[in-house]
Amino acid sequence: MMKIDILSLFPEMFEGVLNVSILGKAAEKGAVSYAVTNFRDFTTNKHNKVDDYPFGGGAGMVLMPQPLFDAVDALRAGEYSKPRIILTSPQGKPFKQQDAEMLSKEDKLIFICGHYEGFDERIPEHLVTDEYSIGDFVMTGGELAAMAMIDSIVRLLPGVLGNDTSAVTDSFSDGLLEHPHYTRPADFRGMKVPDILLSGNHERIAEWRWKESLRRTFERRPDLLEGRDLAVQEKKWLTQFRKETEKKPE
Amino acid sequence: MMKIDILSLFPEMFEGVLNVSILGKAAEKGAVSYAVTNFRDFTTNKHNKVDDYPFGGGAGMVLMPQPLFDAVDALRAGEYSKPRIILTSPQGKPFKQQDAEMLSKEDKLIFICGHYEGFDERIPEHLVTDEYSIGDFVMTGGELAAMAMIDSIVRLLPGVLGNDTSAVTDSFSDGLLEHPHYTRPADFRGMKVPDILLSGNHERIAEWRWKESLRRTFERRPDLLEGRDLAVQEKKWLTQFRKETEKKPE
Repeated sequence: MMKIDILSLFPEMFEGVLNVSILGKAAEKGAVSYAVTNFRDFTTNKHNKVDDYPFGGGAGMVLMPQPLFDAVDALRAGEYSKPRIILTSPQGKPFKQQDAEMLSKEDKLIFICGHYEGFDERIPEHLVTDEYSIGDFVMTGGELAAMAMIDSIVRLLPGVLGNDTSAVTDSFSDGLLEHPHYTRPADFRGMKVPDILLSGNHERIAEWRWKESLRRTFERRPDLLEGRDLAVQEKKWLTQFRKETEKKPE
Repeated sequence: MMKIDILSLFPEMFEGVLNVSILGKAAEKGAVSYAVTNFRDFTTNKHNKVDDYPFGGGAGMVLMPQPLFDAVDALRAGEYSKPRIILTSPQGKPFKQQDAEMLSKEDKLIFICGHYEGFDERIPEHLVTDEYSIGDFVMTGGELAAMAMIDSIVRLLPGVLGNDTSAVTDSFSDGLLEHPHYTRPADFRGMKVPDILLSGNHERIAEWRWKESLRRTFERRPDLLEGRDLAVQEKKWLTQFRKETEKKPE
């Protein structure tokens, strides 16, 4: 069973998320257990302060090293294996599906969630094993980034998703964006499902999906195609997409 | 006041997040109001089903267009202005700080959160105005992505952050990652704060921060430097960083 510890100043943010839907079911099934700890409980100063003014001046407050180092020491006490200690911050490495896959193989993860301005640099430098960012935008804290990462990791644990094929056919698992999906009704307010999907010809449907997956990646995220080992068929389709793009007026 | 409507099958996921910390205070201050609606309430079928099998076969279920189109129609009824209707999905445009800034100027945002496999394509194609992704990883639903985006938008609303300079000096607002921060104690378990920050020389401190901000971006996110209009000083520093990198053994 995976054990996930979360260090946060706002434990109540996690309640509605970790108990609901697939994250909640994963815990019920015994695939994972969560514990959220308020690291303010580890302060040694009189007023339970966790932050202080930055050395060198400037706006905002900085999280002090002492409460977080002591909180991690307490979590680690008695543990035989070294946990991965993950910090979420905009300065981290962009978190990708491969990172979720790699972390889903660990036994123990500790997530450190900052809030407000930032961390004393000794925390990422000396305490943390992995620093991740979920995007080039700024949030009021690391809690939502940690939840997003936990969600993407826990759904990959064995037995968590009902249908074992679901995790495999996701976006990114084959390096392309997902093809469009359609369901009932075939005609909704005059908007129709592509004929091919109603044809019953499974070979042609599989080919259409592959092509649309490639088209969407070409149009929206050409960066994902860089360095891809393209199949012969994919090269032909890309040539076609490029020609179509050139023809379109701006 | 900004009005944010959220359409989700798991409204309880939002409670602990929207009422806490800065998102909760922003609502108390009247800068924003939130409403979470379960779009299952808008189903017209007997069993309140929101999803169905995909046309063309395949694993997983697909969200049907009817409940979401009707839920958005209900939210729009009586509104004078056209709201932005935002879908969170791995197929969307990567969400960036500029998008948060742009959306923070709107009066009304509707977030649509999918869950499980995916959406009927007629939803992104005909209902939605903006489709965003928060990263190249897969989650069990769009709720956490929507919360992350809402957090980054709401903190930019006037009066929400106590210190008006905080939002301006964040990561990404000047195109670079943030420099390291340090606070008390100057020596923690033998780990020391850089001398320069204790020097009191504000000009040299400002220069050190600028340089460390650039160094960090160079080391971790060189993609952010592409297309940057580099200052003369920045060009010199980058030459220095490159030389230092070459000298280091692999």
